[in-house]
Amino acid sequence: MGRVSAIATAVRAQRHRVEALFEELARCGRTDPGFTRASYSPEETAAHAVVTRCAADLGLATDRDAAANTTMTLPGRDRRLPPILIGSHLDTVAHGGNFDGAAGVVAGLAAVAAIRAMGLTPARDITVLGIRAEESVWFQVSYIGSRAALGSLPDGALDAVRIDSGLSLAAHITREGGDPDALRSGPPALDADALHAFLEVHIEQAPSLEEAGIPVGLCTGIPGNVRYPDVRIRGRYDHVGTPRRFRCDAAMAGAEIALALDRVWADREAAGCPMAVTFGRFHTDAAAHGLTTVPGEFRFSLDMRAYTPEALAGLEEAFLAAVAEIAARRRVTVALGPRAEAGVGAVAPRIRDGLAAAADALGIATRPLGSPASHDAAAFAKAGVPMAMLFVRNANGSHNPDEAMAIDDLLDAVAILTAWLVEETCGG
Amino acid sequence: MGRVSAIATAVRAQRHRVEALFEELARCGRTDPGFTRASYSPEETAAHAVVTRCAADLGLATDRDAAANTTMTLPGRDRRLPPILIGSHLDTVAHGGNFDGAAGVVAGLAAVAAIRAMGLTPARDITVLGIRAEESVWFQVSYIGSRAALGSLPDGALDAVRIDSGLSLAAHITREGGDPDALRSGPPALDADALHAFLEVHIEQAPSLEEAGIPVGLCTGIPGNVRYPDVRIRGRYDHVGTPRRFRCDAAMAGAEIALALDRVWADREAAGCPMAVTFGRFHTDAAAHGLTTVPGEFRFSLDMRAYTPEALAGLEEAFLAAVAEIAARRRVTVALGPRAEAGVGAVAPRIRDGLAAAADALGIATRPLGSPASHDAAAFAKAGVPMAMLFVRNANGSHNPDEAMAIDDLLDAVAILTAWLVEETCGG
Repeated sequence: MGRVSAIATAVRAQRHRVEALFEELARCGRTDPGFTRASYSPEETAAHAVVTRCAADLGLATDRDAAANTTMTLPGRDRRLPPILIGSHLDTVAHGGNFDGAAGVVAGLAAVAAIRAMGLTPARDITVLGIRAEESVWFQVSYIGSRAALGSLPDGALDAVRIDSGLSLAAHITREGGDPDALRSGPPALDADALHAFLEVHIEQAPSLEEAGIPVGLCTGIPGNVRYPDVRIRGRYDHVGTPRRFRCDAAMAGAEIALALDRVWADREAAGCPMAVTFGRFHTDAAAHGLTTVPGEFRFSLDMRAYTPEALAGLEEAFLAAVAEIAARRRVTVALGPRAEAGVGAVAPRIRDGLAAAADALGIATRPLGSPASHDAAAFAKAGVPMAMLFVRNANGSHNPDEAMAIDDLLDAVAILTAWLVEETCGG
Repeated sequence: MGRVSAIATAVRAQRHRVEALFEELARCGRTDPGFTRASYSPEETAAHAVVTRCAADLGLATDRDAAANTTMTLPGRDRRLPPILIGSHLDTVAHGGNFDGAAGVVAGLAAVAAIRAMGLTPARDITVLGIRAEESVWFQVSYIGSRAALGSLPDGALDAVRIDSGLSLAAHITREGGDPDALRSGPPALDADALHAFLEVHIEQAPSLEEAGIPVGLCTGIPGNVRYPDVRIRGRYDHVGTPRRFRCDAAMAGAEIALALDRVWADREAAGCPMAVTFGRFHTDAAAHGLTTVPGEFRFSLDMRAYTPEALAGLEEAFLAAVAEIAARRRVTVALGPRAEAGVGAVAPRIRDGLAAAADALGIATRPLGSPASHDAAAFAKAGVPMAMLFVRNANGSHNPDEAMAIDDLLDAVAILTAWLVEETCGG
């Protein structure tokens, strides 16, 4: 049996382990509908315990860093060589699915299990990383777990407050077994310069692969984003009969800003520049609005994302221009509030090409795919670590209870990952 | 002293009574900010008690009908003649002002007090009406008090539930001293065919008079309205990275519907047809929306108003066309939900002309003014009662705590009303 078919066989043999892991994970934070494993919650910690038990069964060395990320290491022949990391996150949004994040940790464990089952020992350590707190909705800070490990958390992040509990990130880290003081003053758990590569498997957050009938996507890049999480428009509450010329309607101003940016998006995308614009929260004030009242206040969140810094800057410029023009014309004031950004994440061409070659050898169809979303991998790319990602087909999007991922498709991604790991670390 | 200057003097002498009434009313349902006298609440009942005590001091005959409206009657020389009613409401929206509604009852009492002070006895009864439950926000039913008195409440209205208490209108009427059984089966308190006229004084809900520098407006008509209090758009919640072609963004669909109708409004108003369009509630779902989620649901309320049935029908047609086109293009479904309408309220030209002549004789500047809002007067007009209204200058709109009405301006309206009453009922 050739090496490629041995890999395919070894990976297929992991199906039971993979299914069992998802069943156990489904018991962590099940809410109706879907799953809620908040960043640094007991439910997220339970998910870390699930993968840690599996790693221990596989004979991996397990540990947890100061940010309570879980490391699960298959030792290499030369332990001084920079290791390969394979990771993703185990938290979810509220009422999210069981696969966004967790599938990447499961994929890493399955790949390592297949390598062990084949009796191979890699040249360098392969560490599967269960990462904390990727979903920025909880603390309004992105990539908390990976940036804590890399020592690149932004100033003040440990004081950020979780939207539901009102407790600080530092307090939550302590509760879940981490050590915020070590994060503040100690050296980072990971030295980016001493990492060989970071790979992440993730379900696709859009149905592009489903549409194309292809199980696995090869990431071409992770979009950068600019976010305004809490924009507030202030107009004037007025009686429903107030004539047009007197109105300062905050909601109409919000609607016009949103549609202005929506048109910019449509035009630039039609011109071949992929991007996305999302007004996720978009609302009058429930305490004051009413059928017979002209809205005097309106709030929205805005996420803009694109694959080049230029495209991103152009979007933000268009947003700010629309705000200025519409606010003046509709006689409202707009408080932009906090602003956050994340840089564009570039994929290492050498790894992407290696993954493509592995897929070809295995006979698995793939296609290049710009990541719709942000991922921990972007934090590693930003730190200078060679990075690549594989996406798994998913018909129903993510961040919802209906995420649809076939285990067969995940195993295809695991096979590609395993073949690349074998090629990279176990000799030609 | 001529009759006109005697009227002016008698009305000015009511200033203390008027100010004392507003002070007493300000103790009914004071909330911070503003006033909350919900329809059929103890606070509204307290306001009825305030005006009833004043009426009793004036020697008027006071009574309460089955809907707990308050009647305060100055008997005429021939009590069999159809009476003149002067009325308005005593409830408010949540955190509203002290003048929307109440000013009209105070004005009626001041006019009657001036007539008595002048030693005049009218030819027919003049009844000041303290009306219940005009603010439709509470039960989502308009003109409850006046329509209950006229016997024109819509089917099922007594079972309507107050938004804050969850109790039925019937239960609330009983609590505040009314008799819902009599409303169901008895004859109406008022026979529209046996009413001489209905007049209402009300603060203007827009700053048109302020803008024009004129204290009193002569109503040219009350707009009809069509309302969709709870439209629900259903799209699909998606991850923030979902590409444009896959999105079914409910909030963007809502924004586009609102702006489409806003453009129709701007165009038709520019063409000389006054109307108003208000999306008072306009919001994503607080339980499910988020910075990183494409909105899958969106809700709004819509109030459309115009002064002719044709203009109103045209607006509604434009709304429904926009909904159909945008829902199809953005792949969302729109559940329109309940629909309510109120007919256009026509002013009796003879009374309006009489009020204008009275103002001229008094030297008080007035201007014709389409009512921005709906009023109890519309229910009387619909029942066939000759109707007219006077508006009082108010810089800050209504339905808010900052309603601005100068007592001098109110007394100008009272003087016009009194002069008309004297002319109409006390001989030439």
